[in-house]
Amino acid sequence: MSEDSVGMLEGNALVAQSGGPTVVINATLAGVIQEALNHPCIGEIYGSMYGLRGMLGGNFIDLAQESQHIIRGLRHTPGAALGSCRFHFQESDLTGIFHVLDKNNIRYFFYIGGNGSQWAANTIDAHARKIGYNMRVIGVPKTIDNDLAVTDHAPGYGSVVKYVATTAREIAIDDQSMGDFDLVSIVEVMGRDSGWIAAGSVLARHIGTPFDAPHLIYIPERPFNDAEFLTSVQKVLENNRYCLVVVSEGIRNAAGEYVRTSGIKDPLGRTELGGAAEHLQCLVEQNLKIKARTTKLGISQRSAAHCASLRDNEEAFQCGTKAVRSAIDGESGKMVTIVRESDSPYAASYALAPLSEVAGKVKGFPAAWIDESGSMISSNFFRYVSPLIQGEVVVPFKGGLPEYVHFRGAKQIESSLFNRRR
Amino acid sequence: MSEDSVGMLEGNALVAQSGGPTVVINATLAGVIQEALNHPCIGEIYGSMYGLRGMLGGNFIDLAQESQHIIRGLRHTPGAALGSCRFHFQESDLTGIFHVLDKNNIRYFFYIGGNGSQWAANTIDAHARKIGYNMRVIGVPKTIDNDLAVTDHAPGYGSVVKYVATTAREIAIDDQSMGDFDLVSIVEVMGRDSGWIAAGSVLARHIGTPFDAPHLIYIPERPFNDAEFLTSVQKVLENNRYCLVVVSEGIRNAAGEYVRTSGIKDPLGRTELGGAAEHLQCLVEQNLKIKARTTKLGISQRSAAHCASLRDNEEAFQCGTKAVRSAIDGESGKMVTIVRESDSPYAASYALAPLSEVAGKVKGFPAAWIDESGSMISSNFFRYVSPLIQGEVVVPFKGGLPEYVHFRGAKQIESSLFNRRR
Repeated sequence: MSEDSVGMLEGNALVAQSGGPTVVINATLAGVIQEALNHPCIGEIYGSMYGLRGMLGGNFIDLAQESQHIIRGLRHTPGAALGSCRFHFQESDLTGIFHVLDKNNIRYFFYIGGNGSQWAANTIDAHARKIGYNMRVIGVPKTIDNDLAVTDHAPGYGSVVKYVATTAREIAIDDQSMGDFDLVSIVEVMGRDSGWIAAGSVLARHIGTPFDAPHLIYIPERPFNDAEFLTSVQKVLENNRYCLVVVSEGIRNAAGEYVRTSGIKDPLGRTELGGAAEHLQCLVEQNLKIKARTTKLGISQRSAAHCASLRDNEEAFQCGTKAVRSAIDGESGKMVTIVRESDSPYAASYALAPLSEVAGKVKGFPAAWIDESGSMISSNFFRYVSPLIQGEVVVPFKGGLPEYVHFRGAKQIESSLFNRRR
Repeated sequence: MSEDSVGMLEGNALVAQSGGPTVVINATLAGVIQEALNHPCIGEIYGSMYGLRGMLGGNFIDLAQESQHIIRGLRHTPGAALGSCRFHFQESDLTGIFHVLDKNNIRYFFYIGGNGSQWAANTIDAHARKIGYNMRVIGVPKTIDNDLAVTDHAPGYGSVVKYVATTAREIAIDDQSMGDFDLVSIVEVMGRDSGWIAAGSVLARHIGTPFDAPHLIYIPERPFNDAEFLTSVQKVLENNRYCLVVVSEGIRNAAGEYVRTSGIKDPLGRTELGGAAEHLQCLVEQNLKIKARTTKLGISQRSAAHCASLRDNEEAFQCGTKAVRSAIDGESGKMVTIVRESDSPYAASYALAPLSEVAGKVKGFPAAWIDESGSMISSNFFRYVSPLIQGEVVVPFKGGLPEYVHFRGAKQIESSLFNRRR
């Protein structure tokens, strides 16, 4: 479809970000903004502050008023520059949301997020059709977890893998240095339900050198067994001075229970994770009497923009531009997807999938990519993931630290109904 | 003194590394090797594998046989390329060590390490004088902890601060993004006895922007009080959506006890730390009912060569060259020191201090640099630390990951008596 064939839809555009940030979610935002400015049928380009919350309260900023310096800086700035949320609205919120959309003549809505956000985008699209509100809704993929359906991979994943594999390689070299005692080094990474991130650490391996770590990788898709783990560690230590283990925060035992939690629920009602690494540390120190040390990369994984993948960054930007072009072309109720054309040389294109095929679905780590031992990852996965970390984003440094941008929030559209204290 | 005035000492040189690695300990090693090759009175240049352990067993490698590519690569490679140890020798080991030194005609000994290593260097120097063995011993400073006496700062410290402050800034931006709930974010950094590293995170602050985190910093030098902490957090959250806390692993309560430990002793007989962040997390979640999340940077702090300070790296290299020139000039029983000439513009020179003034001494974080509240750091410290993180080391990447080197170990001098299994 072209602008001609579907008829031009004139009006304003709204973009929002949702869920846990990635280091490239703002690159996608920059892509949306830059492409939107190319199309005269889009009048104003607004950003909704804190995702859907901003839409409920009419808390928008006028993105065209932000400086070119800031829009350019978005391409390497971590966090969600518009603010994010994990808020799931009720059906009853739709009336309020559409009141705000209508009042601001929003005819294009771009929602950058993971599977929960795609569900929200789908619901908004369906409601618009139902009430005859003429608006085009396009979802843009984003998640470090890489668990979005249909798309080959999600922007955000390549960068977290690049950071985790870099860090694993660096920790391995430190581990290798110590000559006093056998050592087990445990790195805990994100992944409540899936092992995509932990598995990506396999890239740190340098087969045939002293740095062939990580030696063991544990992911939530395979039940974790204490005794098997200890046996595997001992086997690694027969040939190595140290054993580097990478573990997803969400590993579970055969009964499906997390191996260790704080017992606390977070404000989203989810069990507060953390403690997987300490569980493994205790096992090693108490049973094998070998020193074990832990690193929990935590939030740094999804915010380490100083170590971002250039390919991931560029794809994130292109997903943003594709979303706008698709909407201009008359598409709605779709999410942008990345289609892999080939592994080597890597080639990809951009397409669309119905939001309903993505919304709320989870793509687990393929069982075929876990080797028989359950603690290592196959070379097929290596071929899949390797292209995603290629190239380095050059972040400007000032005074010895990376220089990131934030919106000035010039000309806020409507005084906020959004209450900081909830 | 010059080569002429003290008489030329002909013989071989030995260099060793000790203690926990830093991202610039190999830059110092490169400085020693490159400078040693400039002086014809130094015949062979050997590396002792795993510090003093290699000296006990005669486990040396011939560094002149290593390729230029590897020596150049050392300048950005983390870990200790020669291997390290935390081993403290007994007086009874000295006979064996000097047998190996004599057999290999070692007349120059360079020991790169922290205060424990400087103690060992001092003991070896004293023993050489006592038995009339003609050898020059120079210590080269190295520690992420910055707790070495006399020297203005230690190579290794600037890079860990650069990495920790970068990460704190990036985490703060992520924290700032989340609009659903108040949030306390806790980053645990190294520092068993001193707060130098945690204090350095103050550089992440961007006063006057939304990113003025970290808001609270806790270090071992000030007793930690649960109730005061909770009050401070609440105060920060009156004006901010989130509160970023950086905490040293070694914080203690008023009774001098660690706030939380695993109760396990490591192979060095030290209490296994870890859990400071979790202690704070529990306090916040249980008392304030606010979400708290933790990041424990662990070993990545001292191995993140992809985020090293160029100034730190260059100073580390220069300390290595200074050590060799000093020995050639007839010095012995000294450690290289960095003397700050001015803060702004930053200028420094290199000098020597007697090993006895450094050996086993600890330089704590100055009380005058902690503000009254005990949870923030003064601007005087900012002026001290800021120059140390300037400039970025450019690490070569290959296949999307940093490319590090390791010794080939060509022409090992003597078959090892060193037993991997102890």
